Amino acid sequence: MYSSVNTIWVLLGAAMVFLMQAGFAMCEAGFTRAKNTGNILMKNLMDFCIGTPTYWLLGFGLMFAGSGALIGGLDPMVRGDYAAILPAGVPLYAYLIFQTVFCATSATIVSGSMAERTKFLSYCIYSFCISAFIYPVSGHWIWGGGWLAQLGFHDFAGSTAVHMVGGICACIGAAILGPRIGKYDDAGKPRAILGHNLALGALGVFILWFCWFGFNGCSTVGMEGDDTIVSAGLIFVTTNMAPAVASCVTMIYTWVRYKKPDVGMTLNAALAGLVAITAGCDMVSPAGAAVIGICAGLVLPISVDFFDARARIDDPVGAISVHGVCGAMGTLLTGLLSTTDGLFYGHGAHFFLIQCLGVACTALWAAVTITVVFLVIRATIGLRVTAEEELKGLDITEHGLPSAYGGFSLAYDDTPAGALTTDGVSAPAVPVEEAVPVRITASPASGAPKMTRIDIVCRMERFEALKRAMFAIGITGMTATNIMGCGEQHGNVEGYFRGARVEATMLPKIQVSIVVCRLPVSLVVETAKKVLYTGRYGDGKIFVYDVENVIKVRTGEEGYDALQDDEVRS
Amino acid sequence: MYSSVNTIWVLLGAAMVFLMQAGFAMCEAGFTRAKNTGNILMKNLMDFCIGTPTYWLLGFGLMFAGSGALIGGLDPMVRGDYAAILPAGVPLYAYLIFQTVFCATSATIVSGSMAERTKFLSYCIYSFCISAFIYPVSGHWIWGGGWLAQLGFHDFAGSTAVHMVGGICACIGAAILGPRIGKYDDAGKPRAILGHNLALGALGVFILWFCWFGFNGCSTVGMEGDDTIVSAGLIFVTTNMAPAVASCVTMIYTWVRYKKPDVGMTLNAALAGLVAITAGCDMVSPAGAAVIGICAGLVLPISVDFFDARARIDDPVGAISVHGVCGAMGTLLTGLLSTTDGLFYGHGAHFFLIQCLGVACTALWAAVTITVVFLVIRATIGLRVTAEEELKGLDITEHGLPSAYGGFSLAYDDTPAGALTTDGVSAPAVPVEEAVPVRITASPASGAPKMTRIDIVCRMERFEALKRAMFAIGITGMTATNIMGCGEQHGNVEGYFRGARVEATMLPKIQVSIVVCRLPVSLVVETAKKVLYTGRYGDGKIFVYDVENVIKVRTGEEGYDALQDDEVRS
Amino acid sequence: MYSSVNTIWVLLGAAMVFLMQAGFAMCEAGFTRAKNTGNILMKNLMDFCIGTPTYWLLGFGLMFAGSGALIGGLDPMVRGDYAAILPAGVPLYAYLIFQTVFCATSATIVSGSMAERTKFLSYCIYSFCISAFIYPVSGHWIWGGGWLAQLGFHDFAGSTAVHMVGGICACIGAAILGPRIGKYDDAGKPRAILGHNLALGALGVFILWFCWFGFNGCSTVGMEGDDTIVSAGLIFVTTNMAPAVASCVTMIYTWVRYKKPDVGMTLNAALAGLVAITAGCDMVSPAGAAVIGICAGLVLPISVDFFDARARIDDPVGAISVHGVCGAMGTLLTGLLSTTDGLFYGHGAHFFLIQCLGVACTALWAAVTITVVFLVIRATIGLRVTAEEELKGLDITEHGLPSAYGGFSLAYDDTPAGALTTDGVSAPAVPVEEAVPVRITASPASGAPKMTRIDIVCRMERFEALKRAMFAIGITGMTATNIMGCGEQHGNVEGYFRGARVEATMLPKIQVSIVVCRLPVSLVVETAKKVLYTGRYGDGKIFVYDVENVIKVRTGEEGYDALQDDEVRS
Repeated sequence: MYSSVNTIWVLLGAAMVFLMQAGFAMCEAGFTRAKNTGNILMKNLMDFCIGTPTYWLLGFGLMFAGSGALIGGLDPMVRGDYAAILPAGVPLYAYLIFQTVFCATSATIVSGSMAERTKFLSYCIYSFCISAFIYPVSGHWIWGGGWLAQLGFHDFAGSTAVHMVGGICACIGAAILGPRIGKYDDAGKPRAILGHNLALGALGVFILWFCWFGFNGCSTVGMEGDDTIVSAGLIFVTTNMAPAVASCVTMIYTWVRYKKPDVGMTLNAALAGLVAITAGCDMVSPAGAAVIGICAGLVLPISVDFFDARARIDDPVGAISVHGVCGAMGTLLTGLLSTTDGLFYGHGAHFFLIQCLGVACTALWAAVTITVVFLVIRATIGLRVTAEEELKGLDITEHGLPSAYGGFSLAYDDTPAGALTTDGVSAPAVPVEEAVPVRITASPASGAPKMTRIDIVCRMERFEALKRAMFAIGITGMTATNIMGCGEQHGNVEGYFRGARVEATMLPKIQVSIVVCRLPVSLVVETAKKVLYTGRYGDGKIFVYDVENVIKVRTGEEGYDALQDDEVRS
Repeated sequence: MYSSVNTIWVLLGAAMVFLMQAGFAMCEAGFTRAKNTGNILMKNLMDFCIGTPTYWLLGFGLMFAGSGALIGGLDPMVRGDYAAILPAGVPLYAYLIFQTVFCATSATIVSGSMAERTKFLSYCIYSFCISAFIYPVSGHWIWGGGWLAQLGFHDFAGSTAVHMVGGICACIGAAILGPRIGKYDDAGKPRAILGHNLALGALGVFILWFCWFGFNGCSTVGMEGDDTIVSAGLIFVTTNMAPAVASCVTMIYTWVRYKKPDVGMTLNAALAGLVAITAGCDMVSPAGAAVIGICAGLVLPISVDFFDARARIDDPVGAISVHGVCGAMGTLLTGLLSTTDGLFYGHGAHFFLIQCLGVACTALWAAVTITVVFLVIRATIGLRVTAEEELKGLDITEHGLPSAYGGFSLAYDDTPAGALTTDGVSAPAVPVEEAVPVRITASPASGAPKMTRIDIVCRMERFEALKRAMFAIGITGMTATNIMGCGEQHGNVEGYFRGARVEATMLPKIQVSIVVCRLPVSLVVETAKKVLYTGRYGDGKIFVYDVENVIKVRTGEEGYDALQDDEVRS
Repeated sequence: MYSSVNTIWVLLGAAMVFLMQAGFAMCEAGFTRAKNTGNILMKNLMDFCIGTPTYWLLGFGLMFAGSGALIGGLDPMVRGDYAAILPAGVPLYAYLIFQTVFCATSATIVSGSMAERTKFLSYCIYSFCISAFIYPVSGHWIWGGGWLAQLGFHDFAGSTAVHMVGGICACIGAAILGPRIGKYDDAGKPRAILGHNLALGALGVFILWFCWFGFNGCSTVGMEGDDTIVSAGLIFVTTNMAPAVASCVTMIYTWVRYKKPDVGMTLNAALAGLVAITAGCDMVSPAGAAVIGICAGLVLPISVDFFDARARIDDPVGAISVHGVCGAMGTLLTGLLSTTDGLFYGHGAHFFLIQCLGVACTALWAAVTITVVFLVIRATIGLRVTAEEELKGLDITEHGLPSAYGGFSLAYDDTPAGALTTDGVSAPAVPVEEAVPVRITASPASGAPKMTRIDIVCRMERFEALKRAMFAIGITGMTATNIMGCGEQHGNVEGYFRGARVEATMLPKIQVSIVVCRLPVSLVVETAKKVLYTGRYGDGKIFVYDVENVIKVRTGEEGYDALQDDEVRS
C-alpha cells in the first residue's frame, strides 16, 4: 500500500534536484570565460548523462543493496528487494530516481573547480568513477545503513555525503591540475580572471536556491504524520534562512575588506549558506540556521582567499570553499546547534564527536580514492590540455566549436556569398565577376612599389557581397571590424523600444580594410562602389591611405612580396 | 468528491509543462543568430498567448466534447459536461489547463525549424491553426476517445500527439520556406550557421528535461492507488534514462565521426531521448528506456545530417529530427518494447501494427492540413520575409527593435549629449558651443585639398560629450570603435572580483575617427582636448594621419566633395 | 493534526514564489544596460537576503501577531501562537516561509524602476524598510485580520497587497530619483535606452509566469475539500488566461500604433495580465479573466507611455505600470467581475466600493511611508549616485566589478604574460628579454622627429606574449582591437556545429596598434616577428604607416613629447 503524498513529495524532490544541473551549468559557465563555455556546458550535461546509467548499474546497489558496515552490494539494473530500506509508502523506482539526482549533484560539483583546463575525456572518466563508487560507498556509510549511520552520524540531506565529497574531489583535482595559465603573476600573487556572464551566474544561484527546497525539504522522503509535516515546514524555513544570512554577512565582510560589496562573492555566499544548512536543516531552529548562515558568510570569503592566495589552488567558481569547506562546517555545526542533540543545547559532546568522525572519515575516503583516480588518468591519457589548447579555449580544441557565441557577432555569422544567388531569394547588387574586368597593372618598375590601404565603411548586410567581389578581383585577404557610424540625427526614427523612439544617431557598420600593391587602387574602389551602391543614405565611404611597409610574419617577406598571397591567386 | 492528490498532481504538471515554453524559447534563441533574437522570443511567447484562448474557444471542444471517431465537438468557452472523460477526482478546469499547456507545446515546436526567415504575421496565423484544429483533431483520435484510442493505440504523454505533430508541421514549413540565405554553398553543401548563445541553448535543454518530469510523470493525471503510484515512479525513471543514454550515444557517435564530441548535437540528443520515451514511458522497463535512448542517440545525428545534407531542409534547431523523427520512432518502439504488449516481449505484432497505423495516420493528417495552411498563407500574405529583411535581421524589420542586445555594447547605449545638462546632474567638461569659436578655413586654393584623419582615443564616458562637441563645430560624421587601451601596470588595482584583484592593464576605450578637409585639423584637436581634459591619467590621445583620398559611395564624389556633408551643414 | 496535502501545496507555493526572484532578476538585468548588470543582480539578491531575516524579526509579527484593526504586533523570531490565523492543517513554519517569499516579492519590484542610478547602500536601507513595516502593515489590513479584511476587501493573492505596494514605492522612488542621464532630450522627449539582453528579459517573464501558478494557485493555502480543489483548478485557468489575452491585446495595440508588434512591451503585457488577475483569480470566470486581460493589455502601453512621456518618470523596466497601475486596476475589476459579488453580475456596488476604498488607502499608506523613507535617505546618505558614476556604470563604481561580462571579450580575459612561464605549462615563443637587445636610437637631431604607426594583426592567443615583448623593449602604451581576419577558403574545415562544417573564412584576430617616435620601427617589427612566428599559416602581418602628429590630452604635449611616456620608462 503506497502513499500518494509521500510519493508525490519524493518525485517532486527528484525533479527539483534534477534542475540543479541547470543551476550548476549556468553558475559554472557564467563564472568562466566565453572561450570555454561550450566545454563547461557539455561537462555539466555529460556528468548527469553518464551518471544516470552508471548509478543504475553500479552505484545504487553499492549504496543500498545490503546492510554491511562498509559497502552495500552489487545489483546491476536495480532488480533486488529493497523493502527494508525504502521510505514508507514510496515505491522503489521513485526512490531510485530521487537517489540518482543526488548522486549526479555530487559529480557535477567537480567540473567548476577544474574548469577551463581539463581534458574532456578525462572528465568523463573521473565523473564516472565518482558516480560508480566514490559517492555510493560513503553514501552507504551515511544513508545506506553503514557504519556511520549505525553510530548516529546525522547528515540530513547531504552536506557531507553530497557536497563535501564533491568539494574534496574538486580540491584535489584542482591541485593536481595546477592553476590556469595567467592565474598567478610572477610573484605568485593571484589575479582575477573575470567570468564571462555574471547574469547567467546569478541565474544559476537563484535556480540552485529554488532547487534546494527540494533537495532539503523533500529529503523527509514523505509527508505523512504530524512530525514529518512540521519538520518539512521547519526545513523550508532553515533552508531559506541560512543562505539569506550568509549573503548579508559576506556582503558586509567584502564591503569592509575591499571597500565595495562584492557581487560574485556574495552570490557564492548564498550557495555556501545552502550547503552549510543541508546537514542539520531538520535539527536546528531558525535561529540556529541564522547562526550557521553567519558562520558560512564569514568562512566563505576567508576560505576563498586562502585557497586562492595561500594554497594557490585555482578554483574558478569557488566550489572547494562552497561545497567542501562549508559542507564540512555545516555538518560539524549540526553537532553543536541541534536542538535535540547538540552540544550548545546541553546534550554533551557525544553527537558532535560523531559528526567530526563522520566528516573526517568521509573526507579521507573521498580524498584517497579520487587521488588514485586522478593520478591514474594523468599517467595514462593525461588530465590537462596543452597550454596552446588552453589559450585557444577548450570549445574549439576539444569540441570543434568555433565559439559558443558564434552567431552573436553580426559580422561573423553572415552568410557565405555563394548562397546569395541560390534559391532566387537574393542577388548581389552587381554580378561582380563580369562587371569589373580585372586589369592587373604591373607594379611600378623602378623603386619601391607604392602600397595603399583602403578602408571601406559599409552596411553590415552588404559585407558578404563585398567580400566576394574583392575575392573575384584578386584580393584574398582583408580584415573586418565592427564599428559604429555616427551621424547627427535628422529626426529619423529607427524603431521603437517599449513605445519610446530609438533614434538612428549611431548605426552599426562594418569597416573592411584592404592593403594593395600590385592591384590598382582604382579597381578596388570601383568594385566596392558597384557592390555597395543602392542610392540611399548610408551606402558608406571609402578611405585611401598611404602605407609605408608591410611585413608578413610567417615568411618575413616585406612590401610588395608580403602582399602577393593576399592579392592574386594565380 | 474530488481528489486532493490527483488534482495537485495534474496542476503541478500543468505548471511544469507551461515552463517548457521557457525551455523552447531559450533553445531556439540560443541556436539562432542575435539579429533574430527578439523575433524568436516573441514567436515563442505569442504561440502560447494565442493558443490559450484559441484552445479554450475551439480546441478543447474539438478534442474532448463528444466521443465521435473522428472529431469531438464545438464547445466554446468549455461549458459542457465532461464527466465522462475527466480523470478520477480531477475538476474540469484543472484538466483544461493541463490540456492547454500540452497543446501549446505542439504549436511552439514549429517556430524553431522556421526560424530566422518567417513573417511574424504568418507565424501568428499558422500557430492559431495548429491550436485550433490540427492538434485537437488528431488529439481527439488518440486521447479524446476517437478511433485510434478505440483501436488501442498507445501514446502515453504525446510522442505522436504532441511532438510528431509539431515536428511534421515544422518539416513541411521549413521545406516550403526554403533554406536561410547562406545555408548552402554553390555546390549545395550545407554550411553551419552558428547560434548566438549556446549557454542559453543548454539552459533551455535543462529546463525542458526538468519540465518533462511533469509532461510524462503527471500524465498519469492522478496519484491514487498503488498501480498509479508505482507507475509514476517508473515513469520518472524511464523519462530520465532515455535522454541520459541518448546523449551518451550521440556524444560517442559525433566523437567517432567528427573526431570531437559535438556540444550542440549532444544537447539535441537529450531532447531526442525525451521525445522518444514519451509514448511508452509507462510501458517499458528502465532497460527498455535505455534501448529507446540508444536508438534516439543513433537516429538523431543521422536524421539531422539527412535533412541538412540530403533533403536540404534547413532546420536551424533540429526540431524535425528531434520531435518528428524521434516522436514517431518512440511510438513505434513502444510497440516493440512494451513489457505488457510488445512484440519483443512475446506479445505478437498486433500492438506494434496499431502503433504503426496511428503514427502513419496522424502524420498524414498533420501533413495534409498544415500544407494547406501554409500554401494559403503563402498565396495571400506571404510566408517568408524578403531577402533584405532576412539579411538585416527580423528584429529590426519585423519588430522595429534595433537589437535584442542594444544595451550590451558600451558605445551604443550611451547617453544623448543633450541630456548631459538636464536635471543638473551633469555637465560636459566644457560648454563647447561658446568655448571654441568656429573659424572655418577655406580649403587651399590650388591643387587637391589636403585631407586628414584624426583618431581620438578617449574614455567611454566622455564619448557623448565629444560627439556633441564635434557636431557643434560642424563635423557631422564619424565612426566609433570599442578598443582596449593597454598600458603597463603600475600597481594600481581597478577592482576586486571574488576577492582577487583586477588589474588595470587593459581598459576599455573608444576610438573616434574623423576625416576632415575644409575644417582645420587644429580646430578639431583643440575642441577634443577641451572636452576630454580632466587632468587625470587616461584622458586619451589624438593621432593625426594623412589621407590620400575619400570616396562617397552614394554620390560617387571624391576628395573634398565627398566630405562636405560630413563637415558642415550650412 | 496537520494536513499532508495542504502543507505540500503551501510549501510548493513557497518554492515557486521564491523562484520569482530569479524571474525579476533576469527581467531587470535584461532590460537595463550591461554596465549595471552586476549591480541590478546584487540588488535582486540582497532584497531577498535582507528581507528574510527582517520579516522573521519584524514583519511577520506586525502582519499576523494580533488582530488589531491597524497593526498586528511585535513577535521577533516568530515565537507566538498563531493557531487562530493559520490555514487549516498547515504548520506555522510552512506558513512563515510562504509569507516570507510574498514579502520579498513586494520589495524586489522597486529595484527595476530605480535601476541604473540608485546608490546600493540606500537600496539596502529602503528595501529593509519595505520588508520591515511598509508591506507588513498594509498586509495586516488585508490578510492579517485588519480593518480592510473585516470590511470584506478581497485581494486573493496580492494585486494590491504585494504588487501595488511595490509599484507605488517604485513610482515614488523613480520620481524622487529623477530620470537616468540621457533618458530625455533637450525638448524633454523620452528616448529609448535599450536593454542589454532581451533573451534574459524574456526568460524572466516566462519564469515569472510559471511561478505565478504558485503565487495564485497555492494561495488557496490548502487542497482539501471539493470547494478548494475546484477553486485551485479555476485559479490556474484564470491565472493563465489573463496574461495570454493581455499579450495578444498589447501586441495588436503596438502593431497598430507603432506599425510593428513591440517585443518588450508585449513581454511586459504578460506580467501586467498576471498582476491584474491576482486579486480576483478565484472569483472571476475564465471569461472574466479574459476581460481583465483585455483591460491590462490596453492599459499597460498607455500607462507606460504616460509615465514615460507625460509624467516623465523614468522607469527602465515598466514596473510602475505593470505592478502599480495594473495591480490597482485588477483589484477594482474584481469588484466588477466577481461572479459572486461583482457589480456586473448584479450584486450591487457595495463590494466594488470596498475594493476602491482598499486600493486607495493602501496606496496612500505606501506612498506616505515610502516618501518619508526616501526623503530621509536623500537628506542623509543620498539616494542617487553621481553623474560620473552613472556614466561609468554602477558595476565598477559601486561594486568594483570591471564588467559583468569581463570574460566575454576574448581580448580582455587573456592571460597576464608573466604567467606564461610559471608552472612550466607554457613559454612564449621567444624569451623576449634576451632575444632582442634594446638599442634605443636617439631621435633625429634636426627637424620634427618622424612618427610611425605600426599595426600588428595576430592570433588572439599570442596577444599577451606580444604585449609583454613590447613592454620589454620600452613600449608602454598600445591599443588593441578585436577584428576578423578574412581569407578566401581553401577547403579547410575549422570545426563542426551539429554536424555541419564550419569554414574558416573569417577568423577572430587581434590588431595591436603602436605609435613610435624615439624607438626604431625596426626594433618593434623584429620583436613582433620573433614573438609571433610559428611558421604556420595565420601568423599575421605588420603594417607601417606615417603619422603626422600625436597629441596627449592630459598634458597637451605634441609629437615626440606626447609619446615619451608610452615609449620608455626610464
